[in-house]
Amino acid sequence: MKEIVRVGIVGGSGYSGGELIRLLLGHPRAELAWITSRGDKRLEQVHRNLLGTNLEFVREEEAGDCDVVFLCMPHRESMTRAKDYLDRGAKVIDVGSDFRLKDPDLFARVYGGPHACWDLVERAPYGATELHRDEIRKADLVANPGCFAYTTILTLAPLVRAGWVELERIVVTGMTGTSGMGAEPKPQSSHSEISNSVTPYNVVDHRHTYEVEQELSGVAGASVRVHFTPVFSPFTRGILATCNGFMTRDVSRAQLVDLYCEFYGSEPFVDVISMPIDPSVSWQYLPYPNVAYLAGSNYVQIGLDVDPRRGRIVAIGALDNLGKGAASSAIQNMNCMLGLPEEMGLEMRGLHP
Amino acid sequence: MKEIVRVGIVGGSGYSGGELIRLLLGHPRAELAWITSRGDKRLEQVHRNLLGTNLEFVREEEAGDCDVVFLCMPHRESMTRAKDYLDRGAKVIDVGSDFRLKDPDLFARVYGGPHACWDLVERAPYGATELHRDEIRKADLVANPGCFAYTTILTLAPLVRAGWVELERIVVTGMTGTSGMGAEPKPQSSHSEISNSVTPYNVVDHRHTYEVEQELSGVAGASVRVHFTPVFSPFTRGILATCNGFMTRDVSRAQLVDLYCEFYGSEPFVDVISMPIDPSVSWQYLPYPNVAYLAGSNYVQIGLDVDPRRGRIVAIGALDNLGKGAASSAIQNMNCMLGLPEEMGLEMRGLHP
Amino acid sequence: MKEIVRVGIVGGSGYSGGELIRLLLGHPRAELAWITSRGDKRLEQVHRNLLGTNLEFVREEEAGDCDVVFLCMPHRESMTRAKDYLDRGAKVIDVGSDFRLKDPDLFARVYGGPHACWDLVERAPYGATELHRDEIRKADLVANPGCFAYTTILTLAPLVRAGWVELERIVVTGMTGTSGMGAEPKPQSSHSEISNSVTPYNVVDHRHTYEVEQELSGVAGASVRVHFTPVFSPFTRGILATCNGFMTRDVSRAQLVDLYCEFYGSEPFVDVISMPIDPSVSWQYLPYPNVAYLAGSNYVQIGLDVDPRRGRIVAIGALDNLGKGAASSAIQNMNCMLGLPEEMGLEMRGLHP
Amino acid sequence: MKEIVRVGIVGGSGYSGGELIRLLLGHPRAELAWITSRGDKRLEQVHRNLLGTNLEFVREEEAGDCDVVFLCMPHRESMTRAKDYLDRGAKVIDVGSDFRLKDPDLFARVYGGPHACWDLVERAPYGATELHRDEIRKADLVANPGCFAYTTILTLAPLVRAGWVELERIVVTGMTGTSGMGAEPKPQSSHSEISNSVTPYNVVDHRHTYEVEQELSGVAGASVRVHFTPVFSPFTRGILATCNGFMTRDVSRAQLVDLYCEFYGSEPFVDVISMPIDPSVSWQYLPYPNVAYLAGSNYVQIGLDVDPRRGRIVAIGALDNLGKGAASSAIQNMNCMLGLPEEMGLEMRGLHP
Repeated sequence: MKEIVRVGIVGGSGYSGGELIRLLLGHPRAELAWITSRGDKRLEQVHRNLLGTNLEFVREEEAGDCDVVFLCMPHRESMTRAKDYLDRGAKVIDVGSDFRLKDPDLFARVYGGPHACWDLVERAPYGATELHRDEIRKADLVANPGCFAYTTILTLAPLVRAGWVELERIVVTGMTGTSGMGAEPKPQSSHSEISNSVTPYNVVDHRHTYEVEQELSGVAGASVRVHFTPVFSPFTRGILATCNGFMTRDVSRAQLVDLYCEFYGSEPFVDVISMPIDPSVSWQYLPYPNVAYLAGSNYVQIGLDVDPRRGRIVAIGALDNLGKGAASSAIQNMNCMLGLPEEMGLEMRGLHP
Repeated sequence: MKEIVRVGIVGGSGYSGGELIRLLLGHPRAELAWITSRGDKRLEQVHRNLLGTNLEFVREEEAGDCDVVFLCMPHRESMTRAKDYLDRGAKVIDVGSDFRLKDPDLFARVYGGPHACWDLVERAPYGATELHRDEIRKADLVANPGCFAYTTILTLAPLVRAGWVELERIVVTGMTGTSGMGAEPKPQSSHSEISNSVTPYNVVDHRHTYEVEQELSGVAGASVRVHFTPVFSPFTRGILATCNGFMTRDVSRAQLVDLYCEFYGSEPFVDVISMPIDPSVSWQYLPYPNVAYLAGSNYVQIGLDVDPRRGRIVAIGALDNLGKGAASSAIQNMNCMLGLPEEMGLEMRGLHP
Repeated sequence: MKEIVRVGIVGGSGYSGGELIRLLLGHPRAELAWITSRGDKRLEQVHRNLLGTNLEFVREEEAGDCDVVFLCMPHRESMTRAKDYLDRGAKVIDVGSDFRLKDPDLFARVYGGPHACWDLVERAPYGATELHRDEIRKADLVANPGCFAYTTILTLAPLVRAGWVELERIVVTGMTGTSGMGAEPKPQSSHSEISNSVTPYNVVDHRHTYEVEQELSGVAGASVRVHFTPVFSPFTRGILATCNGFMTRDVSRAQLVDLYCEFYGSEPFVDVISMPIDPSVSWQYLPYPNVAYLAGSNYVQIGLDVDPRRGRIVAIGALDNLGKGAASSAIQNMNCMLGLPEEMGLEMRGLHP
Repeated sequence: MKEIVRVGIVGGSGYSGGELIRLLLGHPRAELAWITSRGDKRLEQVHRNLLGTNLEFVREEEAGDCDVVFLCMPHRESMTRAKDYLDRGAKVIDVGSDFRLKDPDLFARVYGGPHACWDLVERAPYGATELHRDEIRKADLVANPGCFAYTTILTLAPLVRAGWVELERIVVTGMTGTSGMGAEPKPQSSHSEISNSVTPYNVVDHRHTYEVEQELSGVAGASVRVHFTPVFSPFTRGILATCNGFMTRDVSRAQLVDLYCEFYGSEPFVDVISMPIDPSVSWQYLPYPNVAYLAGSNYVQIGLDVDPRRGRIVAIGALDNLGKGAASSAIQNMNCMLGLPEEMGLEMRGLHP
């Protein structure tokens, strides 16, 4: 492999694209070859955190060859672009949604029509690195997971594989920060409307539900049904998924923690919170995740609890929707595809406070 | 009944006490007789919104007789204070938690020991006005509901009475604003720790769960089990409860809306959001509640949806935890106990934005 | 005067219009005759706090005669509409900016062209009630002040009249909440961009500066120059103006407090914070205003301090930009124009927290 | 110099200490030798962003020798601790305030009593790297600047050196995020009290004012007087200082930009925003800084403007109070003291959004 990997980003004016730029600037082996945008703003105007970098957007027509291409495009747009870059010899990571669902009919129903390059879907592993590492290592095209989906999948995978909960009655409420709505201004994401509020949306049938069901059914070896409600919440970055399952057998919190620690033992970016629940301490110190502490990082935190009285298991996962939920997991997949150490360029911790 | 009702507040330095003062200042028939506080701060220092009112705290020893007393006290403190005020001829509304649970063993387990005045518990109706109006009218002591409990009860009552969901598998995730933690500074509620975050706490066995199960079982005429997770969220006022049930029969969203509209038809403060779901509009305009728009008011909003594909019903309720979840519902109960119009002094709408 | 005053609102879909509706619903003598909007959304969709009121927008063509009309329109639009309503016998309050500046050349320069109805400007008092009460009582057209302008004028009027500071070197930094940008979504006011930030804009020559200079020069009887920087800040409602002047004579904080208390002694909505500065208490209790505690109200709070070492006087004023800075002060002016008690319908205090 | 520098942190449970840990974990030449705390919480409980690092606090008695020590201690505590570490051969950077003021009488007045080790003060350069780089390179003790002070000094240094403003009438309003109050919970920094608010404090005579006057007088070669008001604002990290000066000569914005670019030309972490003011674009793209985009970084952004009509120059500076205002500037000073490239370990950009 080359010493320096030349990287291109298609769609660099959105939030995921911006986060890719920020992270790749600090990646020891990557070099930003070009970043495209269709808009009329300059890069340093759009991403004010990058003032002084002297980076500029180019039009996609001006983009030369490079080793790795990240696609940050709306639904149904990367499905045709991926092929061009693959044909020019690049490895491609689709940060969008076109290559995630592996059932063509389902794809057509969920994303408004049939897929234009179904053969590519079949060769693109679903980019949850923890579940598909071997395939990703060999792939030239990877479908990076949706942010809600990735959170929920990581939070539930050990549990559904163990079969400790009823697989068809998993209830998930997912809180997302406002960056999840994208950089384009919208009425519902204006500060005045959301900063003192919280409100659900797409209450049934959110598109990410299908990714979750696909992947968890694969992990479980049986059909998993997820009952998911997304809630739009007044913070900028992060997803918190509270996942509820009904026990199929008696299980203690300690057993649950062991199950998860074993499942994720060697994973560099998944932290299972194993500290005991101590009712004498302020609950700031309880073993549940906070999204704030993960912002800007590739880390996932999972907290666990059981309600023996009512027969419920609760698993709570958190990550940064633009980090592990988009840009930094895409870089983890890039590292994996290139045979680099997976942690390269991704070890920075989130901020506190 | 007297033209002017003299009102006392025990515990006026907390957030519920402050909201009672603010609302009672605008109540056409109430006069603030006295407000107690044990602290060393003056009222206008503690409640800076009341600057210029010239109100002052007194010690409880200085509090004279009056017609109605609101108790805003920690767990296990109003249980003994209520009797004194009742003996002196006042009607008493306990904004705290001492008179809510109607099973003495459960009370002892949940609140750390046996109750000191169990006979009073038995004569104190649970103050969900919509469910116990007739009893409240005749009562001299009312147990005002907990904020999470009241939200969940109102959001689920029509559904469990109809029996359209499995009663033992109701899953509720409740987001609360930071005022729910009270006025005392705590590590977890400092702005730096929570303003960019969201985090669950008391993940199983939150005390309000027992109120919900008690009341909903009463409404359903059968045992209801609620699987509840509270989530601490970065807004100041409000609770949003997303309530999930598994259908026992096929039901459409329209039928659900009808069920709720009929149940709450004449209620002055419960708004069932009945507008159709129109996927062509921005989801700002979707029929789900936002807590922001209820702050400072006594209104509750309930939104409804169904997932026919997976057999789930979703009911989402929102209110102001210090308003309908504490102070303003206590005033609604006062109005009810005194034979006044229930809306008196409570018709102000929440702010937008 | 009639028992019930019929009120119309032109431009009810914005934030000022919405606040007028909310407040007028609780005004004992006003009745909402009609509310216009050019948009395609229904009133209860736009102002979700008003769900259940069954109010509807009409087109302006459908608006009938009424007693008072509030104009909530963009720059240069109310200048022509006002005349029509005056001709039809209504009293008119312009919540917009067309009738504020009393110098035609200045108006033309600041607002992009000459005024269409200059005779109306001359008969419209500037609606700072505290400064122009007598004129407002007799007027049929009032120019409601700009939000930044009103805050600054009230905060500085006693000081410039007394001549205790250098009149040409007053430096004001004004923080505004995001509702000040209006209801239309814009990149800079999206939650993701502003919720963790603060940023100045229109750093020199903000339009409201000219209103301030006009009014304060009138109060002082000499030319006043204001050096004003607006700062866009991450809260929803409110303006805080920190106003700095260089002393022309030695003055203590106590003298300053006396000056302000005397100036505003009988004003129902201006609270001068007179409590002493006690360095032993937490500064939560210091005598400076917080915008949060004024939201939804018509109150203004002013705090005062002096730096004898460096010769500076600091006056800090706060109000709700949609309340005293727009809708509720417009209602105060309506009360004044109609001979009603000025406090009518406006006595509700802000929320805490 | 050694390949690996062993670093100790005294006072690692506060926010500055936590940020030092986070940054030093990514510094290629530093190794965390020990981190002290007097509290009873474990490191991963206090800094939840560091979960999985397995770092632990030690008592200061257990701290061994090391090459560099950062002191993060309350007022008047590092003045005695510094000597011990210097005697043991370490280089010391005081992130606290004990070595900043160079006038012993002023120190005694501002910090409540005489200094215990005045000889150390005299050999400790004031750690504004841009102003004292040569001294810092040779020092074994550095006094890291206060956060407000550093922002204001960098924002005004070119202007006062040029003498383009009246030196005795500089007016600064500084907005600070809530992390500036420290990690200890306080009434005024609880989310409920501040998240919808903004409020000034220490309105005159804030301690940092004296650092600013000391340093700017040095730069100007004449007495500079700064009239400073700090404003507590509802974001977590960052300081925005709006600095106003009255022109002593006609100057255009372009000249001002040139002045600053020349002054800071080779500085790695100071970005002067030079793009033109284009009134046709949304003001999101105007050349003023936003604190959000600097969080977690060592960068400073400075925006500039002039009001020729009124004779005012405005310079606006922003930085992260825990980054360039504390921890990361301390690391920049460490790099400087050790002869390492100043940028080492500090090149990560802030987040967007």
